[in-house]
Amino acid sequence: MSGQNTAPITVGIYGAAGYAGQELVRLIAGHPGAQLVFATSDQDAGQPVPGVDLLYKAHNDAGPGSAQVVFLSMPHLASAPLAAAAYAGGTKVIDLSADLRLDTPEAFQQWYGAPHPAPELLPVPYGLPEINRAQIAGAPIIANPGCYPTATLLGLYPLLEAHALSESAPIIIDAKSGVSGAGRKPTATTHFVEVFGNLSPYNIGRTHRHTGEIDQEIGRRNGKTGPVIFSPHLLPVDRGLMATIYVTLATPWAATALQSLYEETYADEPLVKVLPKGQQATLHHVTRQNHGAISITPATDTHVVIVSVIDNLLKGAASQAVQNFNLMFGLPETLGLLS
Amino acid sequence: MSGQNTAPITVGIYGAAGYAGQELVRLIAGHPGAQLVFATSDQDAGQPVPGVDLLYKAHNDAGPGSAQVVFLSMPHLASAPLAAAAYAGGTKVIDLSADLRLDTPEAFQQWYGAPHPAPELLPVPYGLPEINRAQIAGAPIIANPGCYPTATLLGLYPLLEAHALSESAPIIIDAKSGVSGAGRKPTATTHFVEVFGNLSPYNIGRTHRHTGEIDQEIGRRNGKTGPVIFSPHLLPVDRGLMATIYVTLATPWAATALQSLYEETYADEPLVKVLPKGQQATLHHVTRQNHGAISITPATDTHVVIVSVIDNLLKGAASQAVQNFNLMFGLPETLGLLS
Amino acid sequence: MSGQNTAPITVGIYGAAGYAGQELVRLIAGHPGAQLVFATSDQDAGQPVPGVDLLYKAHNDAGPGSAQVVFLSMPHLASAPLAAAAYAGGTKVIDLSADLRLDTPEAFQQWYGAPHPAPELLPVPYGLPEINRAQIAGAPIIANPGCYPTATLLGLYPLLEAHALSESAPIIIDAKSGVSGAGRKPTATTHFVEVFGNLSPYNIGRTHRHTGEIDQEIGRRNGKTGPVIFSPHLLPVDRGLMATIYVTLATPWAATALQSLYEETYADEPLVKVLPKGQQATLHHVTRQNHGAISITPATDTHVVIVSVIDNLLKGAASQAVQNFNLMFGLPETLGLLS
Amino acid sequence: MSGQNTAPITVGIYGAAGYAGQELVRLIAGHPGAQLVFATSDQDAGQPVPGVDLLYKAHNDAGPGSAQVVFLSMPHLASAPLAAAAYAGGTKVIDLSADLRLDTPEAFQQWYGAPHPAPELLPVPYGLPEINRAQIAGAPIIANPGCYPTATLLGLYPLLEAHALSESAPIIIDAKSGVSGAGRKPTATTHFVEVFGNLSPYNIGRTHRHTGEIDQEIGRRNGKTGPVIFSPHLLPVDRGLMATIYVTLATPWAATALQSLYEETYADEPLVKVLPKGQQATLHHVTRQNHGAISITPATDTHVVIVSVIDNLLKGAASQAVQNFNLMFGLPETLGLLS
Repeated sequence: MSGQNTAPITVGIYGAAGYAGQELVRLIAGHPGAQLVFATSDQDAGQPVPGVDLLYKAHNDAGPGSAQVVFLSMPHLASAPLAAAAYAGGTKVIDLSADLRLDTPEAFQQWYGAPHPAPELLPVPYGLPEINRAQIAGAPIIANPGCYPTATLLGLYPLLEAHALSESAPIIIDAKSGVSGAGRKPTATTHFVEVFGNLSPYNIGRTHRHTGEIDQEIGRRNGKTGPVIFSPHLLPVDRGLMATIYVTLATPWAATALQSLYEETYADEPLVKVLPKGQQATLHHVTRQNHGAISITPATDTHVVIVSVIDNLLKGAASQAVQNFNLMFGLPETLGLLS
Repeated sequence: MSGQNTAPITVGIYGAAGYAGQELVRLIAGHPGAQLVFATSDQDAGQPVPGVDLLYKAHNDAGPGSAQVVFLSMPHLASAPLAAAAYAGGTKVIDLSADLRLDTPEAFQQWYGAPHPAPELLPVPYGLPEINRAQIAGAPIIANPGCYPTATLLGLYPLLEAHALSESAPIIIDAKSGVSGAGRKPTATTHFVEVFGNLSPYNIGRTHRHTGEIDQEIGRRNGKTGPVIFSPHLLPVDRGLMATIYVTLATPWAATALQSLYEETYADEPLVKVLPKGQQATLHHVTRQNHGAISITPATDTHVVIVSVIDNLLKGAASQAVQNFNLMFGLPETLGLLS
Repeated sequence: MSGQNTAPITVGIYGAAGYAGQELVRLIAGHPGAQLVFATSDQDAGQPVPGVDLLYKAHNDAGPGSAQVVFLSMPHLASAPLAAAAYAGGTKVIDLSADLRLDTPEAFQQWYGAPHPAPELLPVPYGLPEINRAQIAGAPIIANPGCYPTATLLGLYPLLEAHALSESAPIIIDAKSGVSGAGRKPTATTHFVEVFGNLSPYNIGRTHRHTGEIDQEIGRRNGKTGPVIFSPHLLPVDRGLMATIYVTLATPWAATALQSLYEETYADEPLVKVLPKGQQATLHHVTRQNHGAISITPATDTHVVIVSVIDNLLKGAASQAVQNFNLMFGLPETLGLLS
Repeated sequence: MSGQNTAPITVGIYGAAGYAGQELVRLIAGHPGAQLVFATSDQDAGQPVPGVDLLYKAHNDAGPGSAQVVFLSMPHLASAPLAAAAYAGGTKVIDLSADLRLDTPEAFQQWYGAPHPAPELLPVPYGLPEINRAQIAGAPIIANPGCYPTATLLGLYPLLEAHALSESAPIIIDAKSGVSGAGRKPTATTHFVEVFGNLSPYNIGRTHRHTGEIDQEIGRRNGKTGPVIFSPHLLPVDRGLMATIYVTLATPWAATALQSLYEETYADEPLVKVLPKGQQATLHHVTRQNHGAISITPATDTHVVIVSVIDNLLKGAASQAVQNFNLMFGLPETLGLLS
C-alpha cells in the first residue's frame, strides 16, 4: 500500500468528541497513511482521547499549522473561520460542517439565515467522490456532504446522469435517520423516552437545510427537474440513514435496464453497493460499515422507488471524509476504509 | 349511555390470541354494551383468556350461533368460511381479515393469488366509518380495513372528496409499521436481532396486497387519479403505523385552505385528530390509543405531504372493529372507545 | 361507587409536566371521586394541560388552598416547603419527592447532603399501602415511596413479616429501571444514543439515595438483618422497573411454603399479583398498569430469588399516589385504578 | 507477525450461519494466519457465505480432514460427534457448544439430561485463556466456554485465586444477555414484540445449564465456596452480556487493595480491561469488541459488587475461540483480534 512507505500525513481533528468526530479519530488512528497529531473538544479539553495517546485540546489551543490537513467536525458558522485560517496557513481542509457546501454566500444566507462567515473561500469542491472525484483529487479544501444529501445523491446519480427524469414531476425523498445524526448535545428531541417506540417527521417539505444542498447538486448535474420534496424522520435507532426516493421517468424504462444502469454506474465503486434485483436495502446492510447500499424497484414503467442507505456517521460523515482525504493527498481512495 | 340499559350484545372472537385479537378481548371486556361469550385460539385452547373469565376454545368448537356478532381475527382464506357460516345462521360478522375487503372475487384472486373462499358474500361494506358510515350502520357483515389502508385513506379522504388531486400524478405512500403488524408467529423477519437497529422496506412499489385495497377505495371516491405507489417499511417498534403521503394537486392551494379542509372534514370525528398547522404527527400521538392523527404540510403550492398515524392494532384493527360493531348495532359510535 | 355520590375532591398537582406528573394528571382526570383544579409546570406555564381543560400554572401562581389535596411531583428540596405551606393551610399533601420519606432530618442530611427544608413535618406516614395502610388512612400528609423502594419492599415484605431472614446475610437487590425514572430533563445519561443497546449500572453498592429509604423501612419491620446492597442499572426501555432480590433464610423453607407465604400475604391486595410457581415476573406484566407483580424462586432451601416488578411511573409513583389519596379521603382504595 | 510468514492454517467452521458462526467467519476471514476452507450451514447450503468467496456446505458434506482445525458452532449433542471425528482424523477442534465443557459424562447427564455423545473425549481443556492458558497452548481439542461463564469467571477469578471469598456465603450472579445469545432460530421468546420494552428472567436460581459449568470452574480454582446462584435475564438489546456479581469476603478488604488485586491480575491481559475505580462497566464498553471489561465496587468492607461485561458473540464466543486457536497453534494470542 502506497501510504505505508512514506512519512504519514499529519492530521488534526476539530470537534473530535462529537459522534462523527469520534468516528474520525478511530478511522485516522487506524489509517496506515495518517498520523493524528491533535484532536479538539472544548468540553473535554485535557481528557484522554479514547483509543489514541493524546489529550483533547480546546480548539483555540490547537494550531492548524501543526497538521498537513484538518478535519472540521464543528457546528456551522464556527467551522468556516477555522477553515479560512487553516487554508491561509497552507493546511488542507476537510470541512464536515455545512459552511462550505453551498456555492454562494447568498444560498448560505437563504438556508442558514446568517451571513456566510468566510465567503472568500466559496465555492469549494463538493466532496462526494463517486460523483465529483475529479474536483476533489488534490484539492486544498473540500466540503464534506451532509448525510441526507449523500444518501439522496448516490441514489439519484445514475438517473440524473442518464437524463432520465421527468422535467416536471417532483423528486420525493422520504428520509429516515438514526438519532446520532442529531448530535451529541442532550435535548428534548434526543431524550430516550421521547424517541423510544416513536417515529417523528421534522422539517418536512422544503424546509430542512439539506434541501438547498440537494437542490444545488441535482441542478449541477441535470438541466431541469421538478421540485425536490424532502421529508426527514427521526428513527428510534442510534445510527443508520435511509432515503426512500420516488421519481418519475421521462420515458418508460424496462426494469432490467434500470437495474443495469445502477450496476454499471457503480461497478467500480468499492463504497457503493447496488443490491441484486429483488433485494431491498436495509439499515443493517450499512450500519458500522463504510459503504452505502442501493436497491431499485420499478413501481410502474415510469415510476421508480430507490432505497439508498448509509451509516450516517460513516459514509454520511467520517468515512466519506477519509475517502476525500485519500483523494486530496493522492493515496488509494479506500486506504484505511476497506478491512 | 344507551348500551347500559339493555341486555348486552353477545360477542364471540375468533383468533383471540393474536395481537389484534388480544386487543379485541380487552376492548370488548371493557365495553358497557357487549358481553364476550367465547374467544378462540387453536394453539391455546383450554387456557384462560387473559383478563376475562373464559377459556380459549378451538375455533372448530366455537359455534358462532351462540353470539349475536363475531369478530374474525383469522388468517385470510380461513376467515371467509367462518363469515359465511355465521352470516347464514343470523350472526353478524366483523371480519378483520382481508377476505371481504375487495369487492369482487377477481380482485381477490389478483391480489391474494387464490380463488375467493366465499364469493357469494361479496361485496360487503368497507368498515372505515369516517368514510363509509352510512353503509356500515345496521349492516349484517362488514370488512374491517387493513392497517395501512386505514392510515392512508384517512390521510387522503379530504383531498379525494374535494377532487383536488392531479389526475395523472402518482399518489405516493411511504409507510412504516411496527412489528406487531407482522403477526405473532415467530419468523426470521420478526426475530428481535433482525429488527433491532434496523429499518426494512418490503413489498414496495405496487406489490403489497394492501395496494389493491387502497386502489379500490380511492377509485370509489374519485374518478381519476394517478397510480398509487405504496412502500411499506418495517420499523423497530412494537406498535404504531405512519403513512407519509405525497400528492400533487390539480391546482394551487393556499396552506390555510388545505388546513381548513382537513379540520372541517374531521371536525366531528372523535377518532381522527387533525393536528394544528406546524405540528407533525408522530407515533407517540397514537400508540395505545384508539384515534388516528393527521398533519398536513404543503411543500409547494401544488405538492402536499400528509402524515397520517394510527396504532396498527387499534384504529388499524381492534378499535376500528369496535367502532363498526357500535354502528352495526345502533350503539353510540365511540361506546367503549373513549375513556 | 362511593366517590360518585358526593362532591368530588378538589386536587392540585405540582410538577404536572414531568413523566410522573403526566400520569397523575391522567389518573386524576379519570378518577370518579376527584376533580383537578390546577396543574403546575414552570416551563410550560400558560400552555394547555394535555387531556384536561386547564392551562399549566407556574408553581408560584398556584395557591394550594384552592384544592383539598395537592400532589407534589417536584424535585427534592423544592417539595417540602410546598408541603409545609399546604399543610399549614389545611390542604392534604401527597409528596412524591424524597423530602418526607426519611423519618429524621439527620437521615435526610446523610443521604441527600443538605439540611432538611421542613423538619417540623417529620415523620410522616410512609405511603406504601400494602405495608402501612393503617397509618395512611385519613392522614393529612404522606410520603409517597420511591420507585426502587416500592418494588423492593413489596418483594421483601412477606419474608420480613415472617422474620424469616438470616440476621447477618446481606439482602441483595439487583435493580433495573427504565429511563423515565431519570426524569424528563435532557442529560447525557438520557440521550438516546447513550442508552440504546446499552445497560449501565450506577450508584451501586450502598450509595444510591434510595438505600436509606430501604434500610429504614426494612428496619421498621424486622429487628435485625444483614446489610442492604442495592445496585440499580439503567435499562434501555422507557418504563418499567425490576428488582431481582437475593435473600438468605434463617432456616430452610420448602418451596411450597414460600409460595404460600407470598400468595397469602397478598391474597386480598388488588394491586400486587403473586405469579404462579414457575412463572417469572417480567416488565411486560406491569408496564402501563397500576399493579405490581412478584415471582418467587428458591435457589436452595435457604436461598431465595424474588423478582418484583412495577411500572416505575405508576405503582412506583402516580398510581400509588392515587391509592394513597383514596385512603386519605376514605374512598375505596382502588377507585380510579382498576378498569 | 509470526502468522504472516508461514502458510496460513486451514480452518473449517461448522454452524457458520448462526450468530456466533457469522462472527467466526468474519474473524477468520480477517485473520492474517488463517485461511477459511469451508463453512457449513444446512439451511443455507449452496448459498454464498457473506464476506468470503465460499458457498455454505451442508455439514455432512464438509470433511473435517480438509482443514487443520475446525470450529464447531453447533447445537449441543450434535457437536461432540463432529469433534470426535475431526480429532480422530488429526484435525484440531475448538468446540463452541456445551458438549465438552463439563469434565465428566455424569455432569453432562445431570445438566443436559442426555448421555454424553462422545465420553471418550472427556475431559478437555477449558478454553478460557486468562485462567487456563497453559492447558490450552498446543492442545488438540478445547471446549470454548459459555458466554455467561466467561463473564462470570473473569469477574471472580482474582478473588478465587486470592482465596478471598467466604466459604459459606453464596456467590450471586445476576446476569443479563442480549437476544443473540438465544440463537438465530425464531421462537416466541425472540419475537421482537415480546422482547421490546421488556426484561425477562429465565431459568433463575440453579437451573440454567451454565450453572454446572460455573460450579465446575469455581471448584477447580478454589477449595470451598458457598453455592452459586445464577439468574439470567433476557435484555432488549441485540448483543452484549453483563454479569453483576455479589460476593462476601472471608475477611475485610480495603477498596484500594481490591482494585489493585484486579488491576494486577489482568495487567498483562489485552482482552480484559479493568476500569478505573469509580467507573462502572456497561455494555457499550464491549459491544462489537473483542475484550471484556470489569469494574469493582465495594459495598461494605466484606461485600463486593463486580460488574463483568462482554460481547456475548465475541469474548463470549467467537473471539475467544480465535484466541484459543492462536494458543493451540502457537500464534500470538491476540493475532487477528487487536486492530
